[in-house]
Amino acid sequence: MEFQIAVAKVNKYATSESGDTLEVVERPNGGLSVVLADGQTSGRGAKAVSQMVVRKVIGLLAEGVRDGAAARAASDALFTDKQGKVICTLNIASLDLLSGTIVLTRNNPAPLFVCRGEQIDQLDAESIPLGTSRDVRPIITEFPIEPGLTIVIYTDGLTHAGERRGQPMNVGEAIRSVLEDQDPHPQSLADSLLAHAVSLDENRPADDISVLALKFTARVGDNVRRMTVRLPLDGITQP
Amino acid sequence: MEFQIAVAKVNKYATSESGDTLEVVERPNGGLSVVLADGQTSGRGAKAVSQMVVRKVIGLLAEGVRDGAAARAASDALFTDKQGKVICTLNIASLDLLSGTIVLTRNNPAPLFVCRGEQIDQLDAESIPLGTSRDVRPIITEFPIEPGLTIVIYTDGLTHAGERRGQPMNVGEAIRSVLEDQDPHPQSLADSLLAHAVSLDENRPADDISVLALKFTARVGDNVRRMTVRLPLDGITQP
Repeated sequence: MEFQIAVAKVNKYATSESGDTLEVVERPNGGLSVVLADGQTSGRGAKAVSQMVVRKVIGLLAEGVRDGAAARAASDALFTDKQGKVICTLNIASLDLLSGTIVLTRNNPAPLFVCRGEQIDQLDAESIPLGTSRDVRPIITEFPIEPGLTIVIYTDGLTHAGERRGQPMNVGEAIRSVLEDQDPHPQSLADSLLAHAVSLDENRPADDISVLALKFTARVGDNVRRMTVRLPLDGITQP
Repeated sequence: MEFQIAVAKVNKYATSESGDTLEVVERPNGGLSVVLADGQTSGRGAKAVSQMVVRKVIGLLAEGVRDGAAARAASDALFTDKQGKVICTLNIASLDLLSGTIVLTRNNPAPLFVCRGEQIDQLDAESIPLGTSRDVRPIITEFPIEPGLTIVIYTDGLTHAGERRGQPMNVGEAIRSVLEDQDPHPQSLADSLLAHAVSLDENRPADDISVLALKFTARVGDNVRRMTVRLPLDGITQP
């Protein structure tokens, strides 16, 4: 089998910094975790909050702390620091090679989607962001990995897209229309969802938007691990 | 301008875990750092060492510590822990958006390559791994970013490829032959170098090999940040 991760991310229109932070970390017992946080408001303050939360979570995961405990610790740290005045959403998606499962941890009112073939399930149990109170509990879902499994996670900028014009995005429908194509790469899926949202916002995103797509496929190709990152550099003066 | 990062990574033949660890982290003042470490020997012990070093370095970078200081701190921590009995190479490549420069930090006898058009420079000043003694100094090189700049960094598995058969790899020549193609994507460059090394080792790599290629290009396309990760899963039982 092969595991693919794809991310597509834009800033709110006319802001130079995204309040969303996403990082990938190796798990000490094998596997990877992807950690995505969205700090309240936008710009530099939000970035500092989401970076602090992601930093805390990946530091704990790297020590072997379980995902749920890491999310609770980050929430307590944020609550202690900001006294409940600043909140932050968190999603962790972990491939755990010890158990052969994927573990989804969610402190985010935005749902996530789990797709197997034509079946698309929306996981939308009530979930609150970090930092809102003491003892914030994450919603944790764990299931065995299998070829064809696709998972879509996003920050609320995606669901808010189009609201300004009274045409909010139907994320489930958008996922279905992409998955009807022949076995799309998760980067195509993430890119399509993001492009759809940006077009609903008339190319001026009303919020930072991050889309994360994870996919397990039957093995094709070599045994090389690969990673590609693309970072547009606006505002850098060319010599 | 646009910044692209590409990584290609294989394990030593018949080992399930690579002693090389690579992670990407956002810098608190803007930009990214890529951190690559190669722990002595191979397998689980080497992995624990390289993970510890990368963890230490990215934790410090995330706090705003400068790259050279982070490398020295990781070396001191490794020396204190292992009393000089275990060493680890380290490379840090940082895009610093505050200064508009790229900062290359090296504690690795293996050289690195900086390419501008047809000019390919090998940076091979003597450099020793972390953990060898107290007061290990990194070699630091910093220069302004510009379109067309390509940087290639690797662990010593690449330079050792083919030695078993008395046909060691000439990395500089291999880079030149790929760059003669029309403006290759850094993933093509990293993949080609890795494939060349693996073929010299008769498809049974004698060591873990990691190749990192960084490239600045004149801007083409949208303002979306993207990341793709591909992880082959051997030994996972399919249901």
